[in-house]
Amino acid sequence: MTNDRKPYIAPHPLDLRAVHVEDKYWSTYMNLIRDTVIPYQWEAINDRVPDAEPSHAMRNFRIAAGLEEGEFAGFFFQDTDLYKWLEAVGFSLAVSPDPDLERVADEAIELIASAQQEDGYLNTYFQVAEPDKRWTNLTDCHEMYTAGHLIEAAVAYYQGTGKSKLLDVARRLTDHIDALFGPEPGQIRGYDGHQEIELALIKLYEVTGEEKYLNLASFLMEERGQEPNFLHQEWVKRGRISHWALGVVQKKPTDPSYFQAHKPVREQEAATGHAVRAVYMYTAMADQAIHKGDISMLAACKRLWSNMVNKQMYITGSIGSTHHGEAFTFDYDLPNDTNYSETCASIGLIFFARRMLQAEVKGEYGDVMERALYNTVTAGIADDGKHYFYVNPMEVWPAASEGNPGKHHVKAVRQKWYGCACCPPNVARLLSSLGHYIFTSSSDTLFTHLYIGSEAKLELSGRNLRLKLESGLPWKGAASLTIVSAEGTGSFTLALRVPAWSKQSSFTLNGTPVIPEIRDGYAYLNRDWRVGDILAIALDMEPQRIYASPSLRANAGRVSLQRGPLVYCFEEIDNGALLASLTLPADAELRSVQDNSSSEVILLEATGQRLVIPEQEDGQHTLYHTVAPKREAQRILAVPYTRWGNRNPGEMLVWIREGN
Amino acid sequence: MTNDRKPYIAPHPLDLRAVHVEDKYWSTYMNLIRDTVIPYQWEAINDRVPDAEPSHAMRNFRIAAGLEEGEFAGFFFQDTDLYKWLEAVGFSLAVSPDPDLERVADEAIELIASAQQEDGYLNTYFQVAEPDKRWTNLTDCHEMYTAGHLIEAAVAYYQGTGKSKLLDVARRLTDHIDALFGPEPGQIRGYDGHQEIELALIKLYEVTGEEKYLNLASFLMEERGQEPNFLHQEWVKRGRISHWALGVVQKKPTDPSYFQAHKPVREQEAATGHAVRAVYMYTAMADQAIHKGDISMLAACKRLWSNMVNKQMYITGSIGSTHHGEAFTFDYDLPNDTNYSETCASIGLIFFARRMLQAEVKGEYGDVMERALYNTVTAGIADDGKHYFYVNPMEVWPAASEGNPGKHHVKAVRQKWYGCACCPPNVARLLSSLGHYIFTSSSDTLFTHLYIGSEAKLELSGRNLRLKLESGLPWKGAASLTIVSAEGTGSFTLALRVPAWSKQSSFTLNGTPVIPEIRDGYAYLNRDWRVGDILAIALDMEPQRIYASPSLRANAGRVSLQRGPLVYCFEEIDNGALLASLTLPADAELRSVQDNSSSEVILLEATGQRLVIPEQEDGQHTLYHTVAPKREAQRILAVPYTRWGNRNPGEMLVWIREGN
Repeated sequence: MTNDRKPYIAPHPLDLRAVHVEDKYWSTYMNLIRDTVIPYQWEAINDRVPDAEPSHAMRNFRIAAGLEEGEFAGFFFQDTDLYKWLEAVGFSLAVSPDPDLERVADEAIELIASAQQEDGYLNTYFQVAEPDKRWTNLTDCHEMYTAGHLIEAAVAYYQGTGKSKLLDVARRLTDHIDALFGPEPGQIRGYDGHQEIELALIKLYEVTGEEKYLNLASFLMEERGQEPNFLHQEWVKRGRISHWALGVVQKKPTDPSYFQAHKPVREQEAATGHAVRAVYMYTAMADQAIHKGDISMLAACKRLWSNMVNKQMYITGSIGSTHHGEAFTFDYDLPNDTNYSETCASIGLIFFARRMLQAEVKGEYGDVMERALYNTVTAGIADDGKHYFYVNPMEVWPAASEGNPGKHHVKAVRQKWYGCACCPPNVARLLSSLGHYIFTSSSDTLFTHLYIGSEAKLELSGRNLRLKLESGLPWKGAASLTIVSAEGTGSFTLALRVPAWSKQSSFTLNGTPVIPEIRDGYAYLNRDWRVGDILAIALDMEPQRIYASPSLRANAGRVSLQRGPLVYCFEEIDNGALLASLTLPADAELRSVQDNSSSEVILLEATGQRLVIPEQEDGQHTLYHTVAPKREAQRILAVPYTRWGNRNPGEMLVWIREGN
Repeated sequence: MTNDRKPYIAPHPLDLRAVHVEDKYWSTYMNLIRDTVIPYQWEAINDRVPDAEPSHAMRNFRIAAGLEEGEFAGFFFQDTDLYKWLEAVGFSLAVSPDPDLERVADEAIELIASAQQEDGYLNTYFQVAEPDKRWTNLTDCHEMYTAGHLIEAAVAYYQGTGKSKLLDVARRLTDHIDALFGPEPGQIRGYDGHQEIELALIKLYEVTGEEKYLNLASFLMEERGQEPNFLHQEWVKRGRISHWALGVVQKKPTDPSYFQAHKPVREQEAATGHAVRAVYMYTAMADQAIHKGDISMLAACKRLWSNMVNKQMYITGSIGSTHHGEAFTFDYDLPNDTNYSETCASIGLIFFARRMLQAEVKGEYGDVMERALYNTVTAGIADDGKHYFYVNPMEVWPAASEGNPGKHHVKAVRQKWYGCACCPPNVARLLSSLGHYIFTSSSDTLFTHLYIGSEAKLELSGRNLRLKLESGLPWKGAASLTIVSAEGTGSFTLALRVPAWSKQSSFTLNGTPVIPEIRDGYAYLNRDWRVGDILAIALDMEPQRIYASPSLRANAGRVSLQRGPLVYCFEEIDNGALLASLTLPADAELRSVQDNSSSEVILLEATGQRLVIPEQEDGQHTLYHTVAPKREAQRILAVPYTRWGNRNPGEMLVWIREGN
């Protein structure tokens, strides 16, 4: 086994240890993950967080390992709580060594190893609760999904620490799966209801160089949606029951489009079904395109990408219009107050975007990645690192979240660790691996996708380099790349993403204006770079009004505000209740103002209007009446969406009515 | 047994046979019920409607009567399909004798009688499917609800035909229930999860004069919400399972507020839970207030009425903001595109309103009754009498009804007979008994509540009278009451409701202006009326803009249109798709125009605007962009809400954005 990246020509992310993030905005998040979230989540998976739903994860492993007596508890994919935590730890250790944390993680890995069966099988739910049901309900029971998270954790921990114990466990389980599933006689021609192992297998391929892992990923993807439909056959074989329906025989199975298994993946046209499964799968599809030079798979990825971001994505870079199945619905159906927009789905969208950036360097991928990261992902986590949003609505009325069953999923306050704790550890693993998303490099080009302050070490055109990226985002529109050190001479290219939101961007090289080549949303400058060279970009930070396509009916007559990468929203605490009564006149000036409570945060202020019904004779507003509303001027204030819900719970609104 | 109305002082509706409806607008509906709906529904309950879900109702009775072998099929309250049909038949025969129809109905009644058990019990579900489970799950299984519909059918059929066979069946079952349930030792201190029998028992009391039926109704109502909670106790006793959850043990029972059993009925403040159950119960509460002179019960009715119509009612007189449990949610939560607004609930609201008009003559009761009848109830039925809406939305996007699971209940096209066929027969029984809602009378006053052309026979102040009501509504604002014949002399009072929507109303007596006494929304004129006297009212039919309270967030910045009693809406077929992009300027003139396809129907027309995004370079509208929309003038056309969905399926919108 080698740690060499399997060679491929596409630009690839830098090794996490080669990117040191140091950024006023993002270091706060990364430190929060390292200092608070990872320790807190360790308490959570050990069931030691008061008043939070227990995870049961560690206990399940102890029972499976024979170290404790008891029943399995929690969801059947509860093992992933620990795996995702270990993945975040692996990422964190790569950039911030911490012997105490590493010791705790090593012990957890020992426990995992001791729970693994002789044949390589490892899944505490099936081992403890249903030992005779292994691989009988891939549709519902996330067996490969859980394995996928083990693999991802193992890869991250290996890359972060050089320790291969967990990687060995993961490989034994993977080999077990590889023997069972495949096209050969006696093998199961099946796949998991919840995609995840596919992208994990490709990481395992990348870190081990073993083709069989890439091939297994390909098999699982290509088999999906073929006829006869595996999920349907399995359902019949199982007696037409679902794990979720508690033994009740179903008249019909779940629509295979929910699992993105309605047609072969290469033929899929539109994003369907469970949003997280979809983007995890698209990520692996893009990986396969890259690793196999598979252009028809890339074409499918581009179709799915385009459908998703141009017809089914919220302005905050979130996806999943309905909580029914945490799923996509259909083109332009983007309701503001009942959407799901799961934090995890935006994380998956970022995974997909980065692969697409490897396959083809186009600004739209970086734009969407930035949009999802700066708005939805960070909105998912509270300032204290201990409270999370799963659902990221465009509009909240707390009374309706309480009192209308169709909105129970929309929370006005971030929640502690949930029983189904997918989002918190997903946020942790993404933010602790930010270094994977800032740059990619090919042999002669460094691509900067996100303006997150950091120092990178890499080789370009045979020259060993250190570069420093400095950025004022999201508050200030200035960023620069400095050559800190560079061995030898020879030309290479620096490519900077020009965000679509910047209507006027300008460049300087060592202080002198320069016109780079602009191609597909990136600015390219090739030269024999010298130590001390500074390539700077100035971005347009004027507040902007964003309008939606008329096909997006929910936003007709409305406008949302954006400044730089940040989408803004209105909160009750700043604007009073009944946010729906507010109007932003079409000609109102938008002013950027400093938040009092922070030296950095920029708020947007305008002279808006409030619709007011003149008091009626009895001093009451009747429910319906013929008195036309009046407009009263009111200062209105918008805060970055990512920061909403950090003060008193109240109404929130992204899309405000625009008056003329 | 006598057919004399039990004497009470409150004004009461006239006997159905004493009111002959002859009205250009409403006779069409009544003829449709008599000539099409009743025969069609007979086919439906005999499972002879092609492509419609079978009712199984008649077959279940044959099985219960031992005339056919088989299993019970359909819902456990399927018997009510037949009962509601028989009730409509009873009403219809009262005004339109039809020996053939009566013969068919008599045969059905024979079948019902032959299915009744020795002890009086009658419910084909429990007799055939679960004979040992009688009275063990009142929470879910509608046993008394089903009995209630039998009683209502029996009363209507007796009043319509003078035949008492079905009434005898109903009394035997009622006596059986009366022996089982009550406050005495050995009796069950319980009540049904679905109210209905309470109002039916009061009808039985009215027609038989038997106090015990009134007392049983009172017991069932007063027991409701007392502690310990019967529904909770029953649930524990049943093993904590629900009929609906197929044997799965529940962690907690359904919230008793769903059944309006969360507190004693006299103490309830707000409308909660399943909307039909709520209004059926309020109807019986008002009946009890009238029949017992029970002013604290009346106070509870007034509180519940006020909460419901001033905080939880749609502009069309519909109720039930969510399809989750077909239920109320909370004050001012009236979403336009996910509401339930069941046709049956508006029918129940009409029942309640008429009782409140008996308890106190106030315009608001008549106004709401008219609003619900002219808008929601008639919207529920298609022109062909064979297709029905259960759900009556304020806004429809057919693609979302198909593609968004949160809107599957919102249909863009009226459906054939449903498996749970509550609404169609409910519409039939209401429209065939319209004569019960037009007038009430006390000893010396005739109150006219609805302007529906008709001739009435009654006695006032000892004089036998025939009066003729003529009306141009809903299209023309002219109505008059003529004394056709009158025995003797002596003064009495004619009281006409002055609709709140008529901003300018004027009266003439025999063509000469007259100022009646105006009290609580009614115009009173007392005199020694002579044959040929004509009291006429002219109503204001100017189209109006209706605004909602700012607390009703969903309608902020929007306006709806009303003309006379009719609420209007916009349809795609007249205005193009993307109705959300339409604006009605605040100063646009609203013009009443004749519909081309009909000599009567009035449409509303205005010069509106459409928000249009200038084409972008690539000819596409991107999902989000910074191009401000332009407003293009467009003729917009609104149709009466009650007539929506009778042409090509498409978008529909009641509340349109108002521009300034």
